[in-house]
Amino acid sequence: MAQPTKTPLSEALKRLVGQPVSAIDTPALVLDLDAMQRNLSRMAEFARKHDIRWRPHAKMHKSSALAKLQMQAGAVGVCVQKVAEAEVMVNGGVPNVYISNEVVAPAKLARVAELAHQLTAIHGQLAIAVDSLEGVRRLAQAMNERRHGGTPAVIDVFVEIDVGQGRCGVPPGRAAVELAHEIRRHPALRFAGLQAYHGRAQHLRTAQARRDAIGVVVQDVLFTRKQIEAEGVPVELVTGAGTGSMVCEAASGVFGELQAGSFMFMDADYAANDRDPAQPQFEHALFVKSQVMSSALRHAVCDAGHKSHAIDSGLPKVLTLQPTGELEYFNGGDEHGILRPAGANQRVPRLDDTIWLIPGHCDPTVNLHRYLIGVGGGLAHGKVEKIIRVDARGALT
Amino acid sequence: MAQPTKTPLSEALKRLVGQPVSAIDTPALVLDLDAMQRNLSRMAEFARKHDIRWRPHAKMHKSSALAKLQMQAGAVGVCVQKVAEAEVMVNGGVPNVYISNEVVAPAKLARVAELAHQLTAIHGQLAIAVDSLEGVRRLAQAMNERRHGGTPAVIDVFVEIDVGQGRCGVPPGRAAVELAHEIRRHPALRFAGLQAYHGRAQHLRTAQARRDAIGVVVQDVLFTRKQIEAEGVPVELVTGAGTGSMVCEAASGVFGELQAGSFMFMDADYAANDRDPAQPQFEHALFVKSQVMSSALRHAVCDAGHKSHAIDSGLPKVLTLQPTGELEYFNGGDEHGILRPAGANQRVPRLDDTIWLIPGHCDPTVNLHRYLIGVGGGLAHGKVEKIIRVDARGALT
Repeated sequence: MAQPTKTPLSEALKRLVGQPVSAIDTPALVLDLDAMQRNLSRMAEFARKHDIRWRPHAKMHKSSALAKLQMQAGAVGVCVQKVAEAEVMVNGGVPNVYISNEVVAPAKLARVAELAHQLTAIHGQLAIAVDSLEGVRRLAQAMNERRHGGTPAVIDVFVEIDVGQGRCGVPPGRAAVELAHEIRRHPALRFAGLQAYHGRAQHLRTAQARRDAIGVVVQDVLFTRKQIEAEGVPVELVTGAGTGSMVCEAASGVFGELQAGSFMFMDADYAANDRDPAQPQFEHALFVKSQVMSSALRHAVCDAGHKSHAIDSGLPKVLTLQPTGELEYFNGGDEHGILRPAGANQRVPRLDDTIWLIPGHCDPTVNLHRYLIGVGGGLAHGKVEKIIRVDARGALT
Repeated sequence: MAQPTKTPLSEALKRLVGQPVSAIDTPALVLDLDAMQRNLSRMAEFARKHDIRWRPHAKMHKSSALAKLQMQAGAVGVCVQKVAEAEVMVNGGVPNVYISNEVVAPAKLARVAELAHQLTAIHGQLAIAVDSLEGVRRLAQAMNERRHGGTPAVIDVFVEIDVGQGRCGVPPGRAAVELAHEIRRHPALRFAGLQAYHGRAQHLRTAQARRDAIGVVVQDVLFTRKQIEAEGVPVELVTGAGTGSMVCEAASGVFGELQAGSFMFMDADYAANDRDPAQPQFEHALFVKSQVMSSALRHAVCDAGHKSHAIDSGLPKVLTLQPTGELEYFNGGDEHGILRPAGANQRVPRLDDTIWLIPGHCDPTVNLHRYLIGVGGGLAHGKVEKIIRVDARGALT
């Protein structure tokens, strides 16, 4: 129902391609394409080295174009959280989509079944997570109701276990065994393995704290896998991990797939983690370009507030690039940011100064924008290379 | 450049009109039209009683349709913060728009001048705020550059003074006098008065604290007005106020116009203020409809996280309407909300339970959605009456 409609890019936006960074009106979400490509290469190399699949979370970038770029770099597909996001990805040509979340509303499950059949027809694959018997039964019913002629579609189903996040998922152990059995009762469903993601572990600041948390996750997974396999049911794949903890899951020998997504853009919150020595050095690639539109004795005001960037994981950091030196960003409300010099000898920014903000959290920041302005050659002297549509923006259902 | 393109409503959305509330897929932003209309009537009555104009802030609802509804109820026009918002309002048929914010980029000022001429041609009026001599000069230049034949347009210009917010605006007193003189040097600009808004005062919790804060604002305005009028320049109008403090500005005898906008939807943060006895009783009219998609022993998970509602002013409250009784909402990330019973004897919500959330802050919440689903007859047994497009959503520039 709430599936976003694809709108054409305006002429002004199309004309922006080829122009210098200075031509980008503010506030705007700008992607440093070179930094993004380096992040992608580092992730691909990391996955190869650890012989592990990666299926980055497209809930972060919400762009089917970027999903396809990730698959070109070696990703097996993408994860999403919402059926509407999956619809955008499939419509955008992404053949392998995993809804790593529970869906129980029958009207939504009918859409899931439709997508599963669409992907089967092109030899793609849809997957989904479950954490209730009722959810499995409804999914099977939706798959059966959709079926009429053509290749019978089979959807991959992962059983989610709660490994410390305290959100979705059944407790490790027996409940997961029951779900695996129930999935196997339905021919249109295939038990694909376990979903085990610990979101809160991603932002534990020290590498040791993250290792400890994922150590418990691995124990939970081993315990559950053993119980399922003891009943003759193979657990083919364990999937999970985020940018904060991925080195731990990759080293565990238990996880077969990494869902990390933020590494590609790297926000201020992930950068505030102490980097694990095993972690590739990811760079900030996502910025809000902003401009000073008011300047007073001790502070200046830029034109980007929290309608331009999400502040759920903290305020943005200011990139030290402009002549003003190091600046601190304070909350100025929906449309404004307050800027103060971080050092005593630095000047207050002046009218027109360009301010580059590093968002606190990339996922909900991207969701605030209709497109990303892709820049090549760096922020200081680069040019606009392409406009990337955030086609799953607002895909909530 | 970033002006949103108008997209048609999907067929599924159009079909929703006339259906019961239960047919609304989740998560969705739902407007209780009856409550909204009562809020509008109370505001109109309040303004009549105090013989004061009201020009509600459309940055809150971002909808030209709702702006026109406000004008039908007696508003003189609307405020916006961004040129792109003004463009949406003007294109949507709103004839009186005030950009209550500073604009200094020449490319944006060219758009301002264009709008001023568009509105003049239909006997409407554009207004804008300034807080720098440079800003006034650039505005005048843009107005002159736009002028060619037709009726010469004049834009209303308010001098913003910083009355305690610490954001935009010049200090009260001399600097404002200089700006008033500068405005009067340019035939295409008209000095319209003072902009004096104290955003932080809106959320001081006690009525007395808000009265104290606005008491200082009034002194700052009187001091500045006296200095300007001492030089023979009349200050025709003082404009400002928000939903939290409007009774104080209305009673001041100094303010001639109220900009309060949130009263129409009333969010959880404004409801957390102790109500001033002089303040009309505004009701919650804006809700996120959500559904439980995972349920465990001690908590349940609904399908609305902070991509559905803004959390800059706190997490949403749960409306006590469903059979589960009083619930508390905890942050579950971008796509999930964690629900726990607030009392010991209450049950954990079950799969499929409908959860109505009262957003912490209405402005950035509305900005997350493409449309509001307008319901008549109440949330429990009402019907969808209309779909209201958030046509200035993402109008950032």
